[in-house]
Amino acid sequence: MAGSYFQHVPSLAAFHAQQMQKRDCIRSERLLVGLNCFSRGQTQRAHAHGAADKFYLVLSGKARITVGTEVREAGPGTLAWAPAGVSHAVDEALEDAVVLVVMAPPPRAESRVETPSGPRD
Amino acid sequence: MAGSYFQHVPSLAAFHAQQMQKRDCIRSERLLVGLNCFSRGQTQRAHAHGAADKFYLVLSGKARITVGTEVREAGPGTLAWAPAGVSHAVDEALEDAVVLVVMAPPPRAESRVETPSGPRD
Repeated sequence: MAGSYFQHVPSLAAFHAQQMQKRDCIRSERLLVGLNCFSRGQTQRAHAHGAADKFYLVLSGKARITVGTEVREAGPGTLAWAPAGVSHAVDEALEDAVVLVVMAPPPRAESRVETPSGPRD
Repeated sequence: MAGSYFQHVPSLAAFHAQQMQKRDCIRSERLLVGLNCFSRGQTQRAHAHGAADKFYLVLSGKARITVGTEVREAGPGTLAWAPAGVSHAVDEALEDAVVLVVMAPPPRAESRVETPSGPRD
């Protein structure tokens, strides 16, 4: 936060050809706010958080997102809500995509179940 | 949620000439996600939440936002972080503005301190 309560979120986006990039915006006891930055074709495998609620909000680009058994091609302004215990994934970025990710409370290792294997949150 | 994990957030925006409009997107035990929709000139007075962290993310338009002693003219993509106990306000919408509001945990009447008087969250 560097002493400021304000951030310009799109300016924090960063992409890497090898893997999806994460940037934390806020981390408190109650809340994690970050960016997941997907180059076209990148993915985040299906996983669930046992004791945390999470949502994705697509800020730019487009991605195919699954929550539970629902699948959507999600563009800017689409919010995907994954309550605790519900499996969710970014199946594929259809364009370079910047996705706001919010979790409450922030993830702890013991609260995550990956199905069948996957990257960090 | 109407049975879906997905919502298109900008489609939920609604304005009213008399007062700022609120729309809930998600409410769980851990998290509240909603929209605050300001017509140009509308405000949200300074207040603080004693036991909840909150952020605003401007989705469209522009507003002058204060957190603590920092004041910014915030446009799309600007995130304003108001941790528990820190006073925050939308001093004035400089254009019609749609602002995502996230709180963890969701507000309860007893956790809010208004300074000196103000609307709901």
